[in-house]
Amino acid sequence: MKKLISIILFVVLSLGTWAQRTEIKIPDIPNFVTLKCDFHMHSVFSDGSVWPTVRVEEAWRDGLDAIALTEHIEYRPHSQDITSDHNRSYEIALPVAKQKGILLVKAAEITRAMPPGHLNVLFTKNNNLLERENVLDALKEAKEQGAFFIWNHPGWKAQQPDTIKWYDMHTQLYDNGMMHGVEIFNEKEYYPEVFQWALDKQLTIFANSDVHSPIDMTYINGEKRPITLVFAKNKSLKSLKQAMFKHQTATYFNGKIMGDSKWLKPIFKRSIKVMNHPVGVRNNISTEVHIHNSSELDYHLESTKPGIGIDYPNKLVLKAGKTTSFTISGNSVGIGNVPNLTLFYTVKNLWIKPDENLSVEIKVRNL
Amino acid sequence: MKKLISIILFVVLSLGTWAQRTEIKIPDIPNFVTLKCDFHMHSVFSDGSVWPTVRVEEAWRDGLDAIALTEHIEYRPHSQDITSDHNRSYEIALPVAKQKGILLVKAAEITRAMPPGHLNVLFTKNNNLLERENVLDALKEAKEQGAFFIWNHPGWKAQQPDTIKWYDMHTQLYDNGMMHGVEIFNEKEYYPEVFQWALDKQLTIFANSDVHSPIDMTYINGEKRPITLVFAKNKSLKSLKQAMFKHQTATYFNGKIMGDSKWLKPIFKRSIKVMNHPVGVRNNISTEVHIHNSSELDYHLESTKPGIGIDYPNKLVLKAGKTTSFTISGNSVGIGNVPNLTLFYTVKNLWIKPDENLSVEIKVRNL
Amino acid sequence: MKKLISIILFVVLSLGTWAQRTEIKIPDIPNFVTLKCDFHMHSVFSDGSVWPTVRVEEAWRDGLDAIALTEHIEYRPHSQDITSDHNRSYEIALPVAKQKGILLVKAAEITRAMPPGHLNVLFTKNNNLLERENVLDALKEAKEQGAFFIWNHPGWKAQQPDTIKWYDMHTQLYDNGMMHGVEIFNEKEYYPEVFQWALDKQLTIFANSDVHSPIDMTYINGEKRPITLVFAKNKSLKSLKQAMFKHQTATYFNGKIMGDSKWLKPIFKRSIKVMNHPVGVRNNISTEVHIHNSSELDYHLESTKPGIGIDYPNKLVLKAGKTTSFTISGNSVGIGNVPNLTLFYTVKNLWIKPDENLSVEIKVRNL
Amino acid sequence: MKKLISIILFVVLSLGTWAQRTEIKIPDIPNFVTLKCDFHMHSVFSDGSVWPTVRVEEAWRDGLDAIALTEHIEYRPHSQDITSDHNRSYEIALPVAKQKGILLVKAAEITRAMPPGHLNVLFTKNNNLLERENVLDALKEAKEQGAFFIWNHPGWKAQQPDTIKWYDMHTQLYDNGMMHGVEIFNEKEYYPEVFQWALDKQLTIFANSDVHSPIDMTYINGEKRPITLVFAKNKSLKSLKQAMFKHQTATYFNGKIMGDSKWLKPIFKRSIKVMNHPVGVRNNISTEVHIHNSSELDYHLESTKPGIGIDYPNKLVLKAGKTTSFTISGNSVGIGNVPNLTLFYTVKNLWIKPDENLSVEIKVRNL
Repeated sequence: MKKLISIILFVVLSLGTWAQRTEIKIPDIPNFVTLKCDFHMHSVFSDGSVWPTVRVEEAWRDGLDAIALTEHIEYRPHSQDITSDHNRSYEIALPVAKQKGILLVKAAEITRAMPPGHLNVLFTKNNNLLERENVLDALKEAKEQGAFFIWNHPGWKAQQPDTIKWYDMHTQLYDNGMMHGVEIFNEKEYYPEVFQWALDKQLTIFANSDVHSPIDMTYINGEKRPITLVFAKNKSLKSLKQAMFKHQTATYFNGKIMGDSKWLKPIFKRSIKVMNHPVGVRNNISTEVHIHNSSELDYHLESTKPGIGIDYPNKLVLKAGKTTSFTISGNSVGIGNVPNLTLFYTVKNLWIKPDENLSVEIKVRNL
Repeated sequence: MKKLISIILFVVLSLGTWAQRTEIKIPDIPNFVTLKCDFHMHSVFSDGSVWPTVRVEEAWRDGLDAIALTEHIEYRPHSQDITSDHNRSYEIALPVAKQKGILLVKAAEITRAMPPGHLNVLFTKNNNLLERENVLDALKEAKEQGAFFIWNHPGWKAQQPDTIKWYDMHTQLYDNGMMHGVEIFNEKEYYPEVFQWALDKQLTIFANSDVHSPIDMTYINGEKRPITLVFAKNKSLKSLKQAMFKHQTATYFNGKIMGDSKWLKPIFKRSIKVMNHPVGVRNNISTEVHIHNSSELDYHLESTKPGIGIDYPNKLVLKAGKTTSFTISGNSVGIGNVPNLTLFYTVKNLWIKPDENLSVEIKVRNL
Repeated sequence: MKKLISIILFVVLSLGTWAQRTEIKIPDIPNFVTLKCDFHMHSVFSDGSVWPTVRVEEAWRDGLDAIALTEHIEYRPHSQDITSDHNRSYEIALPVAKQKGILLVKAAEITRAMPPGHLNVLFTKNNNLLERENVLDALKEAKEQGAFFIWNHPGWKAQQPDTIKWYDMHTQLYDNGMMHGVEIFNEKEYYPEVFQWALDKQLTIFANSDVHSPIDMTYINGEKRPITLVFAKNKSLKSLKQAMFKHQTATYFNGKIMGDSKWLKPIFKRSIKVMNHPVGVRNNISTEVHIHNSSELDYHLESTKPGIGIDYPNKLVLKAGKTTSFTISGNSVGIGNVPNLTLFYTVKNLWIKPDENLSVEIKVRNL
Repeated sequence: MKKLISIILFVVLSLGTWAQRTEIKIPDIPNFVTLKCDFHMHSVFSDGSVWPTVRVEEAWRDGLDAIALTEHIEYRPHSQDITSDHNRSYEIALPVAKQKGILLVKAAEITRAMPPGHLNVLFTKNNNLLERENVLDALKEAKEQGAFFIWNHPGWKAQQPDTIKWYDMHTQLYDNGMMHGVEIFNEKEYYPEVFQWALDKQLTIFANSDVHSPIDMTYINGEKRPITLVFAKNKSLKSLKQAMFKHQTATYFNGKIMGDSKWLKPIFKRSIKVMNHPVGVRNNISTEVHIHNSSELDYHLESTKPGIGIDYPNKLVLKAGKTTSFTISGNSVGIGNVPNLTLFYTVKNLWIKPDENLSVEIKVRNL
């Protein structure tokens, strides 16, 4: 049988040859690396349908830097066949994560009726101690382990059928250091109300997949899993945890990024580049401007005010990975002497509030 | 907890809404349905990395009609966490297969050193009885259960590093009704020698995935899993088994179909259609011919002899799902009176022997 | 030089080998063929940038059945280099159209300030006679030639910057048999007001590309050209003309079809097929339904009323070319004895009025 | 009519908004910019089917830096309709080229029977003077204008049906400074013999499209036009001409680059990056290596010799734009102390001779 095992290992290794990672093209920003993360997923050790190592392999392929396996403590439908304890999923996944350079956050999902609903606790030490009759006992245990708390899918119709409600119990948790973050997006669903809560209460925002099936079975037809962007000092578990507690995240799903303008503005700025400086706009003379967008987002721009001495497009799509051309026309005498033209836009798929887009200025040299 | 379970079920059901199946576009042939099948795959119950139901879901999405879960009897690396018996994988998958209309063949993989190597036994009754010290005891048990035997990946480098050898033991099995079929293709590897064995010894041919990971993790960049085409009287386990014992299969992998011309010829014929009958070829006058290919294979044609009274392309690709145009020119007086023109081609991706392509004649009406 | 010409011809013919047509997958309907048409396009003979034959070649590749080259009579910016008359474009394209089986409608675009704006006249006999100082003289000439009149892009911002207006002159034309159809879609723009005019005044509706560049330069990133569906007795110029005068058209653009329910209902009905009759719904028991959509449209369904004795999805997307699965649950005693279940939906991308979708019933056998 | 013209111009400008350029991802190399070029194409002014400006627009979209419109002097099948002179095509295209930043090389194709066949002359001054009865007179005129001469498609079956022959006349041209370069690839055809000629005689190599139809009609199903890479001091016509005369080119077609190793080696080196330095290989311990390939070529590697103290994959594909993982295993005591591991490969799609691939060494740090 030993021979057989070595044979099988051989197969697995050789298969590894062909694995490919698609980097997520969102730039780092000044002073921070932009870590791409998914902190909510399941394996056969709770109600998922894949072995824990698959989550690491998927994450590597999808260009992620950090993940958490968040098995339900209270719900294990495969328990007739799988009897291991609550730390086992993490233990199985860890060696593969190390090999692939994926940060694996030890975690669990405390899974209760509303309130408080489902909460992920990240950076736990011993998940077995979280199995408690009383939910508060479980949460307190997590707190003692130094966990970061996330309220999962607060607007999930199964638990909040009519309205998205913040219960007294959530205030209690919040006041006692047991509510640090919220999912404003889960799987395929966005909760704008929860984004507003996060702004009002200074909660860290997350977008997670909560994936149960193989990831490519859940997101099909070109869909991509939602991710949380964490702006960290470096790629390490320590920096990651620090950044979470300091609210240094944004969410990325459905081709949109949501978060504070201090993160979104440099992401946009580092994504685009005017290719044909200077452009030579003169009165009544048009010239083409060519802008390259090196990120993986199509930026949808709408102008916010007229140009000063120039006409420029009201709408513009800067396609991901492409150079887009458009036309600026001079409409005033003397524009030929203006060295820097400014285009004023909002970016319709970058959101700083549930109802407000990021404003940007694009500068074009005109000598 | 009961409430929770119903919640989770709700999620699973609603998710089902979005599942899509991509039918495999290979036509049925006169008197037979063309069943698309994969008879070699693993779940966490042996050394695979997905829950058994995932294999059914994948099969449905991939357009398959029948599958077999072939867990290793002798090799279960997850046994520390999963302790259930050898029938459990099938039991878990069966209700989902029924729901989705997938024929699920009860099966197992008897996994030994060479000889005899790895053998799949299909249509077993109780896999637990196959766990025997002596390999012949295990195989005899399978035979008593009425199983169909397939020698898996006979050319696997890990067991046949230098040459692909048929051992005396295989003759013994063959003579005693314990070797009915062979994989001429496994996962991503083709064994032309084994195809020749099958022709020489009247063995049923198979192409199977032997998938261990989620299927979309194994076949990437547009690759597709190999499948076995079974030409059966109807879509039922009984017809399927009968067809296997009567060698009514072909293999489909890497855009090629291999098998007897009695299957390949009608598949080609039912795939293509001349759209612009009649064409009106005259001496020194060219006309376009438009041929539609409704199958999912690009047919690569090469002419085998000159046309009679006409010139026509030496090479031609009939793209899958498209109508292809090409030109025929008359090169003889009187061709205008010939009512039926014949184009003589071999199809370079339809194989009836390891070194021989299917020959076809395309008729074009010329009135 | 003669040798050279034969050499070049040789090249063109051999290139022909590889041309491919992508059929437009919208079914024929009872008693009619569904002709796919584009009746508005330009070549270098007016302000387009391709040779007329390119329009035929593009049409063949794009799966069209009929086109019209509609060169501007009054606007020919390439006249310094191209001096030929107004029939020349048609003459050049005609032999290629015959070879490829494309119906080529002789036509021109009478191109004036608003009112009346730009009008296409189809089925003309001699375009040179349309070059008249006075627009009414030109239009009367077209009428005498038996032309079918289409008002092009009535909502074009360049001519109707503020509002979409129907001028007195249009009433005059309409009353005198010089206005039979309108473009409700041109190039990339939809005019819902014009769709309403068409319903109010019994005008034949059109969606045309008005393409000037090579077609693949205008429609990029997966966009497709708009087309007009003509429901004709057969594929001939005569039937085509007849069908136009009898308002037997619908428009297809941006994944939507718009037109009378007598066309849209059979298109939907012939596109879909329930794969797993009968389904076996019982009280409190769910079963999957599998529906195949053989058209090239994703049908987006929303339910209009609750099921009778069953629950079924509120929303459903039947993906083009795929089989979609979803779940029906029995919610009443005795549902098991109901032989035919009915699902009530509107199809959100099939429009019978500017603000009304097609309603459909999907029947599922339940024995 | 003036109003109409401004209307039409308005449309053209606004359409420009959506044009997108796909940069060709082949890196610059030390001391040179890598210009992407196509020096052989036709418009309606010879036997092509598009207006000259279309060639510029296509070039911009396809990521090119420089092109030449090479209308046949002797073959103008549209002369019934288009009567302008041999400089007209260039004149029409030039303003658009300037607007888009495309270098437009003035040129023509001298089109004769074999020998000498078809020759492109680049950097001409007045193409009208090239219309001469005697081919040598035409070529001498081009030489006097300072032209760069390219023998087009020397292996074209229509002119060299049996063998690819270098005629005495070509020696004569070569000796007299009227043969500087050769196309080793034209449209879809590669001539390995001609590549060898270029090595033997120090001819500059080219791969050109010779496109006649709209470019997207010629290259379909994911095919891309062939291009010539010119390694120039900067992006200017002067540097371009200089680089051509100094043989500083390589060819890029069908996913392969061919040329001198002094160009290919730095292209490969600047394309790839080891992501996970250092890797930590130890005796009997495997680790994954992750290599990112930022170019648009899939690099197909095959090992040329065994590793020193390590095993590494015999075959490896570094997918374009992806990070590929593979495994290195230590097979010797002390490998843990070796700071730099070397992998020896040839790159099967980089060619320095018709029968020889580029050899590369990939260094991996191992601390």
